[in-house]
Amino acid sequence: MMIIMKANATPQQVEAVIAKIKAEGLNVHLSQGVEATIIGAIGETHNMSTELFEVLEGVEVVQRITQPYKLASRQFHPENTILPLDGFTVGGEQIAIIAGPCSVESRSQIIETALAVKEAGACALRGGVFKPRTSPYSFQGLGEEGLEYLAEAREKTGLPIVVEIMSQVQVDLMVKYVDVLQIGARNMQNFNLLRVVGETRTAVLLKRGLSATVEELLMSAEYILAGGNGRVMLCERGIRTFETTTRNTTDINAIPVLKNLTHLPVILDPSHATGHADYVAAIARAGVAAGADGLIVEVHPDPAHAVSDGKQSLKPEKFAAMVKQVGQIAQIMGRSLAVVQREAVKQGWA
Amino acid sequence: MMIIMKANATPQQVEAVIAKIKAEGLNVHLSQGVEATIIGAIGETHNMSTELFEVLEGVEVVQRITQPYKLASRQFHPENTILPLDGFTVGGEQIAIIAGPCSVESRSQIIETALAVKEAGACALRGGVFKPRTSPYSFQGLGEEGLEYLAEAREKTGLPIVVEIMSQVQVDLMVKYVDVLQIGARNMQNFNLLRVVGETRTAVLLKRGLSATVEELLMSAEYILAGGNGRVMLCERGIRTFETTTRNTTDINAIPVLKNLTHLPVILDPSHATGHADYVAAIARAGVAAGADGLIVEVHPDPAHAVSDGKQSLKPEKFAAMVKQVGQIAQIMGRSLAVVQREAVKQGWA
Amino acid sequence: MMIIMKANATPQQVEAVIAKIKAEGLNVHLSQGVEATIIGAIGETHNMSTELFEVLEGVEVVQRITQPYKLASRQFHPENTILPLDGFTVGGEQIAIIAGPCSVESRSQIIETALAVKEAGACALRGGVFKPRTSPYSFQGLGEEGLEYLAEAREKTGLPIVVEIMSQVQVDLMVKYVDVLQIGARNMQNFNLLRVVGETRTAVLLKRGLSATVEELLMSAEYILAGGNGRVMLCERGIRTFETTTRNTTDINAIPVLKNLTHLPVILDPSHATGHADYVAAIARAGVAAGADGLIVEVHPDPAHAVSDGKQSLKPEKFAAMVKQVGQIAQIMGRSLAVVQREAVKQGWA
Amino acid sequence: MMIIMKANATPQQVEAVIAKIKAEGLNVHLSQGVEATIIGAIGETHNMSTELFEVLEGVEVVQRITQPYKLASRQFHPENTILPLDGFTVGGEQIAIIAGPCSVESRSQIIETALAVKEAGACALRGGVFKPRTSPYSFQGLGEEGLEYLAEAREKTGLPIVVEIMSQVQVDLMVKYVDVLQIGARNMQNFNLLRVVGETRTAVLLKRGLSATVEELLMSAEYILAGGNGRVMLCERGIRTFETTTRNTTDINAIPVLKNLTHLPVILDPSHATGHADYVAAIARAGVAAGADGLIVEVHPDPAHAVSDGKQSLKPEKFAAMVKQVGQIAQIMGRSLAVVQREAVKQGWA
Repeated sequence: MMIIMKANATPQQVEAVIAKIKAEGLNVHLSQGVEATIIGAIGETHNMSTELFEVLEGVEVVQRITQPYKLASRQFHPENTILPLDGFTVGGEQIAIIAGPCSVESRSQIIETALAVKEAGACALRGGVFKPRTSPYSFQGLGEEGLEYLAEAREKTGLPIVVEIMSQVQVDLMVKYVDVLQIGARNMQNFNLLRVVGETRTAVLLKRGLSATVEELLMSAEYILAGGNGRVMLCERGIRTFETTTRNTTDINAIPVLKNLTHLPVILDPSHATGHADYVAAIARAGVAAGADGLIVEVHPDPAHAVSDGKQSLKPEKFAAMVKQVGQIAQIMGRSLAVVQREAVKQGWA
Repeated sequence: MMIIMKANATPQQVEAVIAKIKAEGLNVHLSQGVEATIIGAIGETHNMSTELFEVLEGVEVVQRITQPYKLASRQFHPENTILPLDGFTVGGEQIAIIAGPCSVESRSQIIETALAVKEAGACALRGGVFKPRTSPYSFQGLGEEGLEYLAEAREKTGLPIVVEIMSQVQVDLMVKYVDVLQIGARNMQNFNLLRVVGETRTAVLLKRGLSATVEELLMSAEYILAGGNGRVMLCERGIRTFETTTRNTTDINAIPVLKNLTHLPVILDPSHATGHADYVAAIARAGVAAGADGLIVEVHPDPAHAVSDGKQSLKPEKFAAMVKQVGQIAQIMGRSLAVVQREAVKQGWA
Repeated sequence: MMIIMKANATPQQVEAVIAKIKAEGLNVHLSQGVEATIIGAIGETHNMSTELFEVLEGVEVVQRITQPYKLASRQFHPENTILPLDGFTVGGEQIAIIAGPCSVESRSQIIETALAVKEAGACALRGGVFKPRTSPYSFQGLGEEGLEYLAEAREKTGLPIVVEIMSQVQVDLMVKYVDVLQIGARNMQNFNLLRVVGETRTAVLLKRGLSATVEELLMSAEYILAGGNGRVMLCERGIRTFETTTRNTTDINAIPVLKNLTHLPVILDPSHATGHADYVAAIARAGVAAGADGLIVEVHPDPAHAVSDGKQSLKPEKFAAMVKQVGQIAQIMGRSLAVVQREAVKQGWA
Repeated sequence: MMIIMKANATPQQVEAVIAKIKAEGLNVHLSQGVEATIIGAIGETHNMSTELFEVLEGVEVVQRITQPYKLASRQFHPENTILPLDGFTVGGEQIAIIAGPCSVESRSQIIETALAVKEAGACALRGGVFKPRTSPYSFQGLGEEGLEYLAEAREKTGLPIVVEIMSQVQVDLMVKYVDVLQIGARNMQNFNLLRVVGETRTAVLLKRGLSATVEELLMSAEYILAGGNGRVMLCERGIRTFETTTRNTTDINAIPVLKNLTHLPVILDPSHATGHADYVAAIARAGVAAGADGLIVEVHPDPAHAVSDGKQSLKPEKFAAMVKQVGQIAQIMGRSLAVVQREAVKQGWA
């Protein structure tokens, strides 16, 4: 860290900064120029806040040189993390397409959807059983019953399942059932949840908060990594801006930015990022063209009667068309669509 | 709700909308005009999402007439909620000033601060023991030890204590100690936490999320109210915008807007809303002038050595000056500063 | 427009609304329901503001059914506008790639760049001669001298030239030289400029303002169209959000949204939308994958010594690589890159 | 400026930076540390962009120490600018209240309003004659006819007049009539307009753009000051955020921030900043409590029939009540309301 002192900083103020640097176990590099005195704090500063020095008198500005995260940083881990998942991988050459309904609504709904998305080319199944709903009066999810239906759908299709976890108290239940724990946008800075998930060895799909910066997303990933769980995928799902024609604004820039800053796989959720089924395919194509490692897409057999997110859910046939286009873009990018390898126990159902 | 059909909607599409309205237990009011067919859905629609109808084919737009929250709405509860708290009240004529450090750091720090803020005119003490920190490497709070220090500070000063709860698993511990459960900005949509807190009968200070709309804040309050806990205060603490000279942007408009939409008390946090000690007093005055029912302010005996939020913490003497100015503004508004009534057990300490 | 009255609106208030609707030359459609009285204002309401009725007493909300723009709307002009430009077209099957430096700096710089971008596959040349600079002390452009260099570059390469106009007083000079008048983000709501440009018959590239909604962009296009100039292209160039890792946030959603709402061609500027040369190619690919009709890209022979926007400028060889990738994406989209047809007068120069 | 080099920067890259610093006429201060090489560029750097060095290879980050504006900066002009205006002053002890309709609609409307706002305590009259309207079909203002009515209103009341200028071509006309040239939010970065206005000696009210940072507002003021016109007032009028219950979000923080960064007077426009007449008084009080030097408020004798901005316009009696409250707040702040001194030629009219 470089601490730049105010032009009129006193020698006592400079001394106080130096003392604090030393107290933090760092080395000092002092440079007294004509316009400004600059004090370098040398050492392990990843885990330090600039505020430590900003509060001291006489300090003009503190410039961080190293990033405030380390385990998530590509600087310290130049190679892509390639995350194996049921025979396919995420973060390498393959593009993973995760699909399914917003909420698990019934046994038949989730199994029907699972069969349809597998047929269309998805490699994993999503479906919520604990739902973060803005209104206390809205459907809140089927809970464990939903997990059982998901497990059955996995058995029938071979698709690993991706399910949102909303609270630290759900972790034991969830890891018993799911292949990937999803942390939703509203919980990106639920640090208790991050810590608990970091203690598991289950893969995690960490969604960016509605108004979280890229750096904050990486800091949240750092929580999970610091707990010892390195199986983390990041997910851009749209940020909140002033624009109202779409539910959120897809931060497509975040895809190459994240690929540059971190070694973790980056997934795009074009469903939440747009909020309209009509725009999902265009943004899905854009995401893969921009370098995303995968997509997570809402698909529902009957969007008009979905209990949640119907407006942004694709019908299976639209989803199949989208997968086809995405596959062509993947090819140009020198990649291919991931195909699930786990054998389905029984393909039929009734 | 008014469902406005597209100009080219078919009679079948109109029928489908009508069928869904009836299936939801609502009455239908059909109005077929030249430019558009409008279908009213009449009945208890507070707890329904517009999406229910937006997903149907032929629907142009759905216009909500009633608000999506009811218990929090001034429409259904025209009188201010006046929340009694240790002899003073929040939401009525009195202006409550809550003050204290960001984090409880030690026994002496919190007791020293409590005595200082009481002396300066605060009526309640804040202090965090579980800290939501962006970095996993930052200080995470003293936990129960901190609660004990806070309880001791309360005993010595008579000030009720306001403490942030971060997870549903902390609720039993917290209600044993604290007078007001604070829900932080990052947890405003931690619905599990809201539900658990709604089951207690402890007062709640609910902070607005960084990018939460006023309506979403009220929906989160509705979660707590729906649980049976009516002792809720709302807190504006700045929202995230593009401006970078301050940590957040105080949404001062939200104060008269909230006072108009809800009967719940509205508190302003000028410390987080600005992020700079130099701007806190100006924004505190502005908040009370705009109609806020109280303030929550970070005060630290030695901000330069605070473990968190030092930059935005006032020294006790600056805080005392701020209270004086705020008191004068309160008077113009026909109000007065709340004074704590609980007797302090012992004023001295050592 | 549908005017929804408050539940407690008086008959007099309803009458006042009806009277105003009639005074505006519209027909009235009254629907008195149980929960609300709704008054339809039927007729030519495109050019009316909802505020006309919102200010009346007893009005709860005014719901627009038709869009507030007409000439720009796809509703009234379902076919794509295909804009001919020197042998190629914009808005049809072809993808137009416009490239060149931020500022024209010298004769040799612009001619060298023009030759390089043509060689790489661009179909038009950009270059600013009047520069909107945040600081009054920054380079403000070469003015007419720059236009002469651009004209010479066009002569040597056959590339039509796209140049920003900053003020209505520049219009006579500009139309003498340029093929496409660019209106920059900061002037998107410079209505005097829009009106003057609408009176010309020169093609216009209208950039979206930093914080302009999609609807506002279309309203600004409407100004130009209403003046009789139908040769308008829209340009997404990134919007201002809280994210700071990139200069702006590319609103990639705006591409399919605009293609849905309007018949005008939609161009993406990945240079301003990211602000970093490293991210330009990824976002250029994403834009074409999302359905953009073209790109406008900053290219400079020596970005490290560019007088402006060096950080986001591609070197010619990087640009050539980008064009290649974009061409492949175009093919998947069933499109091809536009090729300039105007013959270059002399290919060599010195 | 401090140029911090990447950890792996080569000696050649360091040399290139040093060469560029010297080429800019600045002195070099080199500091080679363990973690990073830092190169200070010493001299007159106010008028330089950090981009100058950011584009060079091997550069990690460039940290500005001095602000990018000088004439507007309090650093170089510690005393408040106190701007005399018809017997009262802006920026000193007095609080200036400017009021009037959005648009001048007729002779009687503006004269009636002028008399009413003067009676209520305003010291200046606002009224638009060239209107920046989002839609080309909306009322665009009375033009010179409106200026004549304003001049007559000034004659009858003694109130100086504040009128928006929209284009550089209007400047000769405007300075003949008006006391204060208003530059609207949409023109804050219309640099041609800023430059022309900077060449006059008429006072200027410069409004902050919808998404302009505080720094950008000061850079735009710098344009006017650099032209030799020091009579500049800044105006916060709300910024664009995601919140939709109000038209804009009042950035109340900007008031103390601007008072800290600049010596120029700071005015608040609570009408545009909220967009609702019901919230104007609360925000007006807040503005003065936060340290604003004045207010500009929309007042209309009959808001329900205003041609523009009726929703946010106060009736004269509401405005009078607001002035009374603001006067009380002013007193607490040790200030008083400005009173116009220019004698009205004739008080009656017909």
